[in-house]
Amino acid sequence: MEFLVKPVEKVWEERAWQRLDCLTKPPRSLGKLEELAARIAAIQKTDRPRLAKGAVVVSAADHGVAAEGVSAYPAEVTPQMVLNFLAGGAAINQIAKSADAEVFVLDVGVNGPAFPEHPRLIANRVRPGTGNIAREPAMTLDEAEAALMAGFEAGKQALAKGATLLAAGDMGIGNTTAAAALTAAFLGLPAEAVTGRGTGVDDAAYRRKVAVVERALARARARLGDLERARPLAVAAELGGLEIVAAAGVLLAGAEAGVPVVTDGFPVTAGALLAARLEPAFAGYLFAGHRSVEPGHRRQLEALGLFPILDLDLRLGEGTGAVLAFPVLRAAAAVLSGMATFEEAGVSGGG
Amino acid sequence: MEFLVKPVEKVWEERAWQRLDCLTKPPRSLGKLEELAARIAAIQKTDRPRLAKGAVVVSAADHGVAAEGVSAYPAEVTPQMVLNFLAGGAAINQIAKSADAEVFVLDVGVNGPAFPEHPRLIANRVRPGTGNIAREPAMTLDEAEAALMAGFEAGKQALAKGATLLAAGDMGIGNTTAAAALTAAFLGLPAEAVTGRGTGVDDAAYRRKVAVVERALARARARLGDLERARPLAVAAELGGLEIVAAAGVLLAGAEAGVPVVTDGFPVTAGALLAARLEPAFAGYLFAGHRSVEPGHRRQLEALGLFPILDLDLRLGEGTGAVLAFPVLRAAAAVLSGMATFEEAGVSGGG
Repeated sequence: MEFLVKPVEKVWEERAWQRLDCLTKPPRSLGKLEELAARIAAIQKTDRPRLAKGAVVVSAADHGVAAEGVSAYPAEVTPQMVLNFLAGGAAINQIAKSADAEVFVLDVGVNGPAFPEHPRLIANRVRPGTGNIAREPAMTLDEAEAALMAGFEAGKQALAKGATLLAAGDMGIGNTTAAAALTAAFLGLPAEAVTGRGTGVDDAAYRRKVAVVERALARARARLGDLERARPLAVAAELGGLEIVAAAGVLLAGAEAGVPVVTDGFPVTAGALLAARLEPAFAGYLFAGHRSVEPGHRRQLEALGLFPILDLDLRLGEGTGAVLAFPVLRAAAAVLSGMATFEEAGVSGGG
Repeated sequence: MEFLVKPVEKVWEERAWQRLDCLTKPPRSLGKLEELAARIAAIQKTDRPRLAKGAVVVSAADHGVAAEGVSAYPAEVTPQMVLNFLAGGAAINQIAKSADAEVFVLDVGVNGPAFPEHPRLIANRVRPGTGNIAREPAMTLDEAEAALMAGFEAGKQALAKGATLLAAGDMGIGNTTAAAALTAAFLGLPAEAVTGRGTGVDDAAYRRKVAVVERALARARARLGDLERARPLAVAAELGGLEIVAAAGVLLAGAEAGVPVVTDGFPVTAGALLAARLEPAFAGYLFAGHRSVEPGHRRQLEALGLFPILDLDLRLGEGTGAVLAFPVLRAAAAVLSGMATFEEAGVSGGG
């Protein structure tokens, strides 16, 4: 499995900075918005970038580890929320509508009856939920490849209608546990450093969750050795989840298509870490929509060298924090493309 | 001069929280976005708030204190930038376009020839720039009242076409010096705590700037006594500037019309402090679009009890950081209005 992600061309980032420094504002006075603009320029290979309609693929799957009592919600919520996404009743639907983005839902591994057909449902169930990672591998390596490709195909489908920005979202009861295990494995961190309260577990469940992540890591190490050096997809097969692996595929599809991709919270960014290990050029296309309250998310963003566009204490997932940042990315592109230079506007420069 | 700002109705904020906690997401998992939604609900007196088109009034004026060498730019930039706003070449034009907001420019005190007529120019020049606050009052009390009313009328005009969100922006070479003096006066802080580098002065100019603020404060105290207890508009008349006072009027017009108002960076938020002192009910309508790198801006936001929606190291002004936050406010309203409840969606709650 190979992805054809072309490295972003730094020459366009430099040209963007040259132009940004001639525009009618004190140099660098738009702060991080200018950094975003320069990176979009490098991705689009122009110093007049444009961003219009966006899309988000919400990958959904279940987690065998939910049986360990690591979530505040029962596993049946995963399929219920898929129906809610398709009916337009979830947070991501409202945020996407207000941010001019279309919502696609990928069933890559929900546990339950098949969903009725729907124009925005992409049914590609690899297996009905992962194994319980505290006791067994999340999935086989073949299944991990299938989940990755399911995400990749869903990403391509989401872009087919002309989206210029792509986000990945997630739904899966138990998935912050899998994300914690995967993040600890990739970054060589202890379970406690990356385990948070997810959708809101109490102290006892939190302690259970840390212990479960530790057991999953010990089990994976026994099979693969040093997890920082093991094959990334094999680590993902051990620790899951299906939607996390699919999110990596979604983001890789955007990068391969030359589109800026936006990561969301803790589970999706575990997928972004996987994508970055699979394809070194990927990181050039990636933006962080927000910083979640999950402690491991901060570690992920640091490892990826990203600053969060928003920091509003979100901890919902679904792609909400990624899509909420779309308008800021559009504004960054618009500033670089549309502003007048000091010369064009007849404005005196600084001294 | 009285403003008829009705206190926001906290009962609607409570009803909004009741609804937010029934929506298909873990309680409070959208963090500060939910706080924004509840406040918008209180302003609109409904638990189904809606935000659509926005507007921004950029108030422009000159500052006699620019003669002290406190800015990196010459004073002629103020009128040049007004023409740039009207031609659509400035950062605020591009950001407003991408955030569905209309830009109005209020000339409340630019120094130079009158501008040609333009459909989005509101010509209401109270005087051609302030006095040099290091040596003399910025303006008379009558002029301060006129500037306030100019902003108020401009705000009403900006809302007349149906805007549901209103921001204030500023343009005025030298205005972070006036903003520092005004903020120090209102909050009882030393000049150094609230003086920053504005659009980018060097060390020598920065030291000059602090000294100028100290002289202006000493001069104002000699005339008015304790500046925290003096009549707020009299303090503003001493320290300026015309566009800062006008920004207070713009924001008060939004609050009087029952529209959420969004403050921008350091100079506009000095105007927001003035508005809050003139009209206690005003604060219920006010949001902070962003946190600027100016050190005094953080102190202003703390005093107003506001968190910044964005924190992207902007230091440009013009209303850019306020308008950039419009889409987040719209998304907050959309979440509260459009999401399904657990019951409606048939999703199991947490336990």
